[in-house]
Amino acid sequence: MEYAFQKIGLIGRTDSSRFSESLSRITILFSSLDLPVMVESHLADLMPGSGFDIASREEIGNECDLVVVLGGDGSMLGAARLMARYKVPVLGINRGRLGFLTDISPDDIEDQVFSVLEGHFTTEKRFLLDVLVQREGQIIGRADALNDVVVNSGTSAKMMEFDLYVDEVFVYRQRADGLIVSTPTGSTAYSLSGGGPIMHPRLDAIVLVPMYPHTLSSRPIVIDGSSEIRIDIGVENIIQPPVICDGQVNLTALPGDSVCISKKPDQLSLIHPVGHSFYASCRDKLGWGSTLVDKK
Amino acid sequence: MEYAFQKIGLIGRTDSSRFSESLSRITILFSSLDLPVMVESHLADLMPGSGFDIASREEIGNECDLVVVLGGDGSMLGAARLMARYKVPVLGINRGRLGFLTDISPDDIEDQVFSVLEGHFTTEKRFLLDVLVQREGQIIGRADALNDVVVNSGTSAKMMEFDLYVDEVFVYRQRADGLIVSTPTGSTAYSLSGGGPIMHPRLDAIVLVPMYPHTLSSRPIVIDGSSEIRIDIGVENIIQPPVICDGQVNLTALPGDSVCISKKPDQLSLIHPVGHSFYASCRDKLGWGSTLVDKK
Amino acid sequence: MEYAFQKIGLIGRTDSSRFSESLSRITILFSSLDLPVMVESHLADLMPGSGFDIASREEIGNECDLVVVLGGDGSMLGAARLMARYKVPVLGINRGRLGFLTDISPDDIEDQVFSVLEGHFTTEKRFLLDVLVQREGQIIGRADALNDVVVNSGTSAKMMEFDLYVDEVFVYRQRADGLIVSTPTGSTAYSLSGGGPIMHPRLDAIVLVPMYPHTLSSRPIVIDGSSEIRIDIGVENIIQPPVICDGQVNLTALPGDSVCISKKPDQLSLIHPVGHSFYASCRDKLGWGSTLVDKK
Amino acid sequence: MEYAFQKIGLIGRTDSSRFSESLSRITILFSSLDLPVMVESHLADLMPGSGFDIASREEIGNECDLVVVLGGDGSMLGAARLMARYKVPVLGINRGRLGFLTDISPDDIEDQVFSVLEGHFTTEKRFLLDVLVQREGQIIGRADALNDVVVNSGTSAKMMEFDLYVDEVFVYRQRADGLIVSTPTGSTAYSLSGGGPIMHPRLDAIVLVPMYPHTLSSRPIVIDGSSEIRIDIGVENIIQPPVICDGQVNLTALPGDSVCISKKPDQLSLIHPVGHSFYASCRDKLGWGSTLVDKK
Repeated sequence: MEYAFQKIGLIGRTDSSRFSESLSRITILFSSLDLPVMVESHLADLMPGSGFDIASREEIGNECDLVVVLGGDGSMLGAARLMARYKVPVLGINRGRLGFLTDISPDDIEDQVFSVLEGHFTTEKRFLLDVLVQREGQIIGRADALNDVVVNSGTSAKMMEFDLYVDEVFVYRQRADGLIVSTPTGSTAYSLSGGGPIMHPRLDAIVLVPMYPHTLSSRPIVIDGSSEIRIDIGVENIIQPPVICDGQVNLTALPGDSVCISKKPDQLSLIHPVGHSFYASCRDKLGWGSTLVDKK
Repeated sequence: MEYAFQKIGLIGRTDSSRFSESLSRITILFSSLDLPVMVESHLADLMPGSGFDIASREEIGNECDLVVVLGGDGSMLGAARLMARYKVPVLGINRGRLGFLTDISPDDIEDQVFSVLEGHFTTEKRFLLDVLVQREGQIIGRADALNDVVVNSGTSAKMMEFDLYVDEVFVYRQRADGLIVSTPTGSTAYSLSGGGPIMHPRLDAIVLVPMYPHTLSSRPIVIDGSSEIRIDIGVENIIQPPVICDGQVNLTALPGDSVCISKKPDQLSLIHPVGHSFYASCRDKLGWGSTLVDKK
Repeated sequence: MEYAFQKIGLIGRTDSSRFSESLSRITILFSSLDLPVMVESHLADLMPGSGFDIASREEIGNECDLVVVLGGDGSMLGAARLMARYKVPVLGINRGRLGFLTDISPDDIEDQVFSVLEGHFTTEKRFLLDVLVQREGQIIGRADALNDVVVNSGTSAKMMEFDLYVDEVFVYRQRADGLIVSTPTGSTAYSLSGGGPIMHPRLDAIVLVPMYPHTLSSRPIVIDGSSEIRIDIGVENIIQPPVICDGQVNLTALPGDSVCISKKPDQLSLIHPVGHSFYASCRDKLGWGSTLVDKK
Repeated sequence: MEYAFQKIGLIGRTDSSRFSESLSRITILFSSLDLPVMVESHLADLMPGSGFDIASREEIGNECDLVVVLGGDGSMLGAARLMARYKVPVLGINRGRLGFLTDISPDDIEDQVFSVLEGHFTTEKRFLLDVLVQREGQIIGRADALNDVVVNSGTSAKMMEFDLYVDEVFVYRQRADGLIVSTPTGSTAYSLSGGGPIMHPRLDAIVLVPMYPHTLSSRPIVIDGSSEIRIDIGVENIIQPPVICDGQVNLTALPGDSVCISKKPDQLSLIHPVGHSFYASCRDKLGWGSTLVDKK
């Protein structure tokens, strides 16, 4: 039989024992295929006797042409950032309820994964953000993000003063808890809690959401996805702003530093089973069915 | 002397007598030029002895290659929708304070208008929305908008139930006062009051802002500018939803009708004096300098 | 047997045939009691052979010491405004899911209604708003509201300009679609869609929510429940603002009129079965269990 | 001459040299009075030759019957928390622009302070919050706040899971960045940035504002001022939530701790010159005059 992919990788959280049933189903499915499979070592421990090759994430990225990620949007973020570099498409299997990035539920593993392997799928490109911290003209740190970059004061009781530039044009001087810079992919995550709009994944745009701004009229701003964003941390700040990429502190800035954010050249290829709908995910995850009392 | 334009049109509000000083300054400036000028008749009455040609807006659109609009963002909207059809660029002169569409203030008329005529300007393209109302497969009305299209219940005490589709994909069934569909140009107008994000004018995107939605988790959604939006008015509604384009009721829908909105092929060419900045307009008009009490 | 009430009234929507099962259960329950029961005539038609007295709402208000309302928060609003005048407590039975005002679900009719009749209940006071429209010093109209009073432009494409006073102190001149004035009872209804806060029913407060205000920094204002609110409709408006009480247009104002809103002396007595919790209603009705993607 | 007060205290920021002109004017005014004056030592250094008594804040609180505070809402918060304990009324003089708590501007010092001393003033009571951290039944820390208490995760990249109780009734389990608990006084400060309503200072109420809640339908909740609020920090959190009172970290909680917040018995007496208006402060400080483009 011909498959749409030649070598499959399997990646998951280190606490993957919590979804042993999904792992069993995947083991049985993959064993039944005439395809080479590479798995992370902590997963292999949970799949005794499977006979799959054990490999690091980097080896998987180098050799596979499809990576299956087990575990929810959180796990997906890390895997996706890495696989974007290797240009390997990823397919997410969720534990329990669906996520925005992981659209196969445990009960549908056999049907939907097999269907994808047979070639029934759509591929969606998602861009990532490249984040640099510059100090006196030197790049002192670099990271990437699929969802969002948050620069904030890092301490609960202080504001951060910063100047925002987009494509070298001054936007504003702001005093706020911080700023969220989100991709369309991240627009249904933290940015949404902060009052940002939902952005369709296909949109080539970035949203800038001020966090508890001093100025009440500061609102989320949506700019072109190819914009160059620069956040100049005011020298008079007495804070050391963490730069948080997809919810993890990767870098720390100092007063006087610039945090530069732009689109990465490499994109993530996200595999969806046929029939996937972004709006259906919104309806499901955002409870768009819930209603209040009637206006008569 | 060589000018960047060969024939100038002048358009303004019918109550243009309120800015007679600006009119005088324009009369003097235009009279000093070696260029043909066409003006609307109600303006000509306010410029006695100017000797400019009197013409309808349509004649101005047909013959001029630059149209100067006097009077604020409101006046600009009507002129812009018309001139987009004639592909004639427009330049806005405000009365008093600056607008988002009109960036020449009365005090700068001589310097800035002359500078534009000499060729010192930038041209920005703004797209418009094409709005159709369909009933039983027939188009029963058509209009266009530069800022926004609002479909609502039309009566203060009733909600509107509708189904929203984007590119033929179902988004949600909503009970709400209505829906705002806004271009980037309109994103700093009514949409902003309704909680929509600011969108940079260069962005090729449309925002959908639900008005007082029944479902608390319904948020503004930003979609690609080339999307086809369809609002199906539920047959069980007992209202006749007005379709409001740039703040004017152009069409009325009935239960069972579809309101279809998409980008128009013709775009507005907006002329800016050199040095124009969208973000500077935001800072000025949205009071981004205002601050609250300090967080210590 | 001793009951906590001596005469029960039953009130419901005119389309009460949609919940015939609930009516049957109520008929059986009430027939088994040794208590006089008065029902509205359109309900009596749906309860053939029950032998209950047929009466108007006014007679029910005059003679009963408990009124049971069948039908959701909408039905409750009308019944509650009337019964507050007669100082008769009301108990709400919902069709299907629970409401904020109606806390007995169809399945619990026998247990919970009987339990209330035995004296197991709590009584909660809810205040109502008294609304006057004044023209040249004369009162030209009067209405009341349990949830909210909305004054707006009445037409989709116009703003309303008004001056707001609280206890004769000037608050602001506003250009907006309108203003929502809500009690704590109404704070989970229309006001919430407009960005107003949830107010605990016991709170003696009123919230003023500007609708799509021109001024971005205009926010909901919570004031003392005993405040006198006056909305002066600007004389330069070209609209006739409807005054909407609990979602029904009761009055229409003209430019130059004042809309005066204050607490009514009579309060609604709302009966709750033992164990009722406002916050539980919020969790249920507002979907406070729904969650987004995880922040890791 | 008879004064309304017998002994005046003067309190200010340690960097008070920045408003030396205001200090000079106060020195001249106070020297001209036949009244004993006590000043903090760092202020006395800036008022050479004034001959005022030097005293600690505690001595001032014990002996004076009016305390004048120099320096903006930030300085006022610390002084106010202390003086509430001594039941001494305070009068605020701002540097530059007006604040919500400090209503005398530098230019009006002579007129307005003298007028207050003559007895022309109003006194407004403002309540404070008492904050306890409980661990295994023991109180392990205590603090107070005039504006707000913020409990959050303390670290930018983590959420806090907590259970909220009001008067021992369960409200919700929430995953969020944190929770703001604000008095009416604080409702125009941090709480407002977070989407909370403005509450009139006279209102006996507290607002609970969830910070970036996981659940989109979580909204600010306004409860009675005499409510007992309890925030149970989930044991499974891996954070140590700081408890921030008026913008300063006073206490740190651990997973499993309870943060208990209620009204303090002692209130602040805030002195206003005659003619003070809360809404005028709002108009001034919140830019309620600013307007967007016109809706035609």
